[in-house]
Amino acid sequence: MDLDLAEVARIVDGEMCGANVRVRGLGIPTRAEEGDLVVVKHTALLRPALLGRAAALVVRADVKHVTKPTVRVASPVQALVRLLSYSRRSRQWSDAEPGISPDARLGRNVALGADVWLAPYVVIGDNVRIADRAKICPHVVIGDDVTIGKDTLIYPMVTIYPDVHVGDRVIIHSGTVIGADGFNFEDDQGAIYKVPSTGTVIIEDDVEIGANCCADRAVYGATRIGRHSKLDNCVHIAHDVQTGERCGFAGQAAVAGDATLGDGVVLMGRAGVADSITVASKTMILAQSVVTRDTEEGQVYLGFPALPHIEQKRIWRALRDLPALLDDVRRRSGDPTTR
Amino acid sequence: MDLDLAEVARIVDGEMCGANVRVRGLGIPTRAEEGDLVVVKHTALLRPALLGRAAALVVRADVKHVTKPTVRVASPVQALVRLLSYSRRSRQWSDAEPGISPDARLGRNVALGADVWLAPYVVIGDNVRIADRAKICPHVVIGDDVTIGKDTLIYPMVTIYPDVHVGDRVIIHSGTVIGADGFNFEDDQGAIYKVPSTGTVIIEDDVEIGANCCADRAVYGATRIGRHSKLDNCVHIAHDVQTGERCGFAGQAAVAGDATLGDGVVLMGRAGVADSITVASKTMILAQSVVTRDTEEGQVYLGFPALPHIEQKRIWRALRDLPALLDDVRRRSGDPTTR
Amino acid sequence: MDLDLAEVARIVDGEMCGANVRVRGLGIPTRAEEGDLVVVKHTALLRPALLGRAAALVVRADVKHVTKPTVRVASPVQALVRLLSYSRRSRQWSDAEPGISPDARLGRNVALGADVWLAPYVVIGDNVRIADRAKICPHVVIGDDVTIGKDTLIYPMVTIYPDVHVGDRVIIHSGTVIGADGFNFEDDQGAIYKVPSTGTVIIEDDVEIGANCCADRAVYGATRIGRHSKLDNCVHIAHDVQTGERCGFAGQAAVAGDATLGDGVVLMGRAGVADSITVASKTMILAQSVVTRDTEEGQVYLGFPALPHIEQKRIWRALRDLPALLDDVRRRSGDPTTR
Repeated sequence: MDLDLAEVARIVDGEMCGANVRVRGLGIPTRAEEGDLVVVKHTALLRPALLGRAAALVVRADVKHVTKPTVRVASPVQALVRLLSYSRRSRQWSDAEPGISPDARLGRNVALGADVWLAPYVVIGDNVRIADRAKICPHVVIGDDVTIGKDTLIYPMVTIYPDVHVGDRVIIHSGTVIGADGFNFEDDQGAIYKVPSTGTVIIEDDVEIGANCCADRAVYGATRIGRHSKLDNCVHIAHDVQTGERCGFAGQAAVAGDATLGDGVVLMGRAGVADSITVASKTMILAQSVVTRDTEEGQVYLGFPALPHIEQKRIWRALRDLPALLDDVRRRSGDPTTR
Repeated sequence: MDLDLAEVARIVDGEMCGANVRVRGLGIPTRAEEGDLVVVKHTALLRPALLGRAAALVVRADVKHVTKPTVRVASPVQALVRLLSYSRRSRQWSDAEPGISPDARLGRNVALGADVWLAPYVVIGDNVRIADRAKICPHVVIGDDVTIGKDTLIYPMVTIYPDVHVGDRVIIHSGTVIGADGFNFEDDQGAIYKVPSTGTVIIEDDVEIGANCCADRAVYGATRIGRHSKLDNCVHIAHDVQTGERCGFAGQAAVAGDATLGDGVVLMGRAGVADSITVASKTMILAQSVVTRDTEEGQVYLGFPALPHIEQKRIWRALRDLPALLDDVRRRSGDPTTR
Repeated sequence: MDLDLAEVARIVDGEMCGANVRVRGLGIPTRAEEGDLVVVKHTALLRPALLGRAAALVVRADVKHVTKPTVRVASPVQALVRLLSYSRRSRQWSDAEPGISPDARLGRNVALGADVWLAPYVVIGDNVRIADRAKICPHVVIGDDVTIGKDTLIYPMVTIYPDVHVGDRVIIHSGTVIGADGFNFEDDQGAIYKVPSTGTVIIEDDVEIGANCCADRAVYGATRIGRHSKLDNCVHIAHDVQTGERCGFAGQAAVAGDATLGDGVVLMGRAGVADSITVASKTMILAQSVVTRDTEEGQVYLGFPALPHIEQKRIWRALRDLPALLDDVRRRSGDPTTR
């Protein structure tokens, strides 16, 4: 990236204010380097961006008193996405030309849409349907009766078990496994039975799934990941889970079997949901926190077992005073132990 | 699935009571739909099943006062397994016909039993032995000197490092890695040494391992996963761990190096065991809880560091009263801070 | 392994004291068997080693009063490494002969050093450079413009996305994914944007990465794993993370986006670092603990949210007395509830 600010303004469809300086790269507000362009996504980042070494800023149109050359835009986030897309260098798997590798192995009755890419060493079962412009990267394995939607991108080394349905514009990163058997063993009077997972998994449109995730098939019906939901790496979605639309799952998050999530639920890093519970829409579960009971809409949860975050923080503050309190009580009572 | 209740009774070897209604699918007790058959595995689920929309129930023979058409059986769990197996539709990898793909690559001196399936792009090292009816799915990589037992099923994209022993009737799901090096680095007076993992891993008979798990090889001897143990997804078993028989490991559970587990130990979701400790038989470690000391047989542990669950729950109840207690003590003492 | 103690002394370059007994295997201090040789790495292990059934010991030269046949060495850890390397039996992938498999698929303009191994079903993109003696095991997929350093070993089923740089003498175990997109979605006035990860990942020299790990590419610049750092299995390194040299990450550890780690930082099992924070050099984060604020150099952290471990342990001790304290306060005040 080596542009002057007027070109930046053109790319992001914004208004230039101040000198038409040259920018050489995108910088992070808190650690920008000489010549960097910094996109200020949130007001809180404006001050560090101004104090830092950035040559110029991109800010929301209503931001005032900016002392560096600036491009003003309606949406800094959208501007950032455009600039990043512009600066992308190397050819990614998403840029692959359509075509069927002679090293791809296809089962019987496979229906391929227009402009599909099947890379080397892809293995596809019988009765699979792959829609237009889907890209199936090297070493992907797809079982019988799977459907893959249009414009979907499956990165290398993904395994999709039989019967799974993957929607349109879905992205699945490497190492992810969709449709393995649920973890469902029952002990009945001393004998262990494996409860077979006869259901499947449905990944709805516009979902993105990170690397090394798992989403297990349902015992009955389908495990479902709702439209526009986004999963980070190493996320575990157990059998029969139902998630709403626009849910987010950060790294190592996990949802246990039979749980139901509403729309817009967010699990931060390593957050969890216990089995069979219902998580109301717009619930946020903070990092490293696990909800063990049904939640209230829009509430934020923290800790294990998770409590509403305000209550949990109050407890955590009190905890830091607990040793002194205990000493104090013991001293007053003249009793060296209260136990 | 579209059966009348008399056919259901025949499949599950049970006794029909009430009308011979038609059932169209298997339902979950708490959210059955019109026409569903619901299997009542536990007494606690009887009431929701009766109140719900299920057309008919399968119940244990000694259950009384059932107000819907019913099939009575000795073991509802076994009945559920039979019904699920009956209703399974799509061809799974476990149904694959035996045969050796021309795209499988075999090393020297590989011994194959009868009716083995080696799928496309399987890579097998030297001196490997694979017993009768084992199924090795596409893209499995197996190192030198590995043995795979009879009727074992290895799903796509599994890696088995050299020397590992996998027993009979074992199931290993996609993305799992057996026999990688243990995480064992020693700092000796400033120099870092990698302690080589010269041992191996033994997966005993009737073990099932979920997707994206790891079981590392031992420094000496063998890491061992005992007979009939079952692992969910993303479970991490470190080097030199010894587990007993019939242990269970739910999603994201982890056992650190050199730990020893007795028989029938259960780790719920994301439970953990610290390194080098001994977990007594029938210990249960509840979700998100990590034991850091040797445990007592049959005891249930909770929290981090894990305590016997009754003690931990008492502490957690008290914690919710702590902020008020602290305020109270401060008010009585006339002191705004006790610190 | 079947040696007499004089041969052991020769292998480890030590001094034999006592009878020249025969040893048949390496044993763990606390559970050695008849005929075992036990290497006593730490003084604390001397007593169990002496009390156990070991035939002979390897001890540091300054250890006194050893009542079994002994080899004295300058570094027991180095002695252990030599003995383990000596006793290794089976051929590992690291022992593979150089050569290019006819089943490897190479892109345009791939530059291969001397004595490289490209195993069957390796897929390599355009403009990739692989240095001398690198070993690329079966089923590894490498994107365009990647560089792989000399003497680097990539185990089966690893995916390396385009543009990534892997240094010299790096080891990456199976199932690991380097360079997937960062988890970076922004909600701007109701619209969700994916922030593209246009940066890359740099794995510096002498890094070892376990099985089923992920290290995501940067939004800008590069995610960096510093020289001599070691990662266990299932470790998640998010986009734009910078780690120093000689860091250690035990199983299931995770570092959230934009965090910066100094040199010699250690994350024990399932430890975590919150996003965007700075972890000072030589910080140790104990197992199951997550730091949510910048840390102090050399400090040890425990719990969630992590506190300096001495403070956290004091709180945990006090917690066990909390229920009794609460009962006591209630009894004194004559009030059955303080809430």
